Amino acid sequence: MENIEYAVILVAIALIQYLVFVGMTGAARVKGKVEAPAVSGNEHFERMYRVQMNTLEQLVIFVPSILIFAYYWPAQWAAVLGIAFIIGRLLYCLSYLKNPSSRGPGFAMTFFSNAVLVLGSLAGAIWAMTG
Amino acid sequence: MENIEYAVILVAIALIQYLVFVGMTGAARVKGKVEAPAVSGNEHFERMYRVQMNTLEQLVIFVPSILIFAYYWPAQWAAVLGIAFIIGRLLYCLSYLKNPSSRGPGFAMTFFSNAVLVLGSLAGAIWAMTG
Amino acid sequence: MENIEYAVILVAIALIQYLVFVGMTGAARVKGKVEAPAVSGNEHFERMYRVQMNTLEQLVIFVPSILIFAYYWPAQWAAVLGIAFIIGRLLYCLSYLKNPSSRGPGFAMTFFSNAVLVLGSLAGAIWAMTG
Repeated sequence: MENIEYAVILVAIALIQYLVFVGMTGAARVKGKVEAPAVSGNEHFERMYRVQMNTLEQLVIFVPSILIFAYYWPAQWAAVLGIAFIIGRLLYCLSYLKNPSSRGPGFAMTFFSNAVLVLGSLAGAIWAMTG
Repeated sequence: MENIEYAVILVAIALIQYLVFVGMTGAARVKGKVEAPAVSGNEHFERMYRVQMNTLEQLVIFVPSILIFAYYWPAQWAAVLGIAFIIGRLLYCLSYLKNPSSRGPGFAMTFFSNAVLVLGSLAGAIWAMTG
Repeated sequence: MENIEYAVILVAIALIQYLVFVGMTGAARVKGKVEAPAVSGNEHFERMYRVQMNTLEQLVIFVPSILIFAYYWPAQWAAVLGIAFIIGRLLYCLSYLKNPSSRGPGFAMTFFSNAVLVLGSLAGAIWAMTG
């Protein structure tokens, strides 16, 4: 169960990071004078909105996968992948806001962390069922 | 475990509410004659689409957070926050459809419920691991 | 617990399918020369982006619902609904890319699987609490 608690802490940190991105998107909307329901018209808002949306897309994979992964594999492995995800998202946000075409490395860090987490979850569950 | 069952029921209700929003967005697309893959061109559709998208953004935080929170804290606290989330979303939808600039209070209810749920989850997991 | 393992495997497969959709959206962005933060300007990219977004919307319901459903109901029922969801998404992707107006059946398969999963989850949790 210690396993799971590491993963739960990393899930909570990733969700708090996302909550900050949501707050930053709201602030960019006000500052850029983008009236709802529009989601375009100001470059800084559009970049921040894309950071928030892309993080949402990755979180839908990350949250269940890290919890399942941590149930089947050693706690340290889940922790390393979770920390890579969170640092990857920070890097993605900072680089995207500066220059969208520099977003590659931050995206790759989260994408590959997620790929390992979800493939590991699948392998763990199949192993547990057949083993 | 009774704790968890309250939270599970509130998760299910929030997801059914979201399923209704998805259905309303589809209906608004047909009525407003917005042909896929476009997501603009009709004011009512754009508002409903934004309500649905914003609810998606908040649900990604809400669903794992309320389940983790309910595991570490009293059932009634999780229930109050979950009910605030669901009422906040209803208010958000109704006010956004009437006038997007009136969406603040409904948004704030879900944002702050989520903030308490996720910070409480983090505190609970840290406490459990170190305590 | 065997129940849960079937559902966990289907969750992992659905998330891997989504990861493939995310990869296809990235490839369509490069091929269609749609520069970030834009999300329009190329028909094929827009279709693939909508497939990915719609799948995200449905996964937020699917992932928690199938896990809760599998906890309260027979494993085979959860498996049938999970397989219907994954096939429905594949059909949705293929038909949307060919012709967006043919996306109905694939969408319906996932929407109704999700509706049964979430209503079944609610019924199961209420039954467990009161029973």
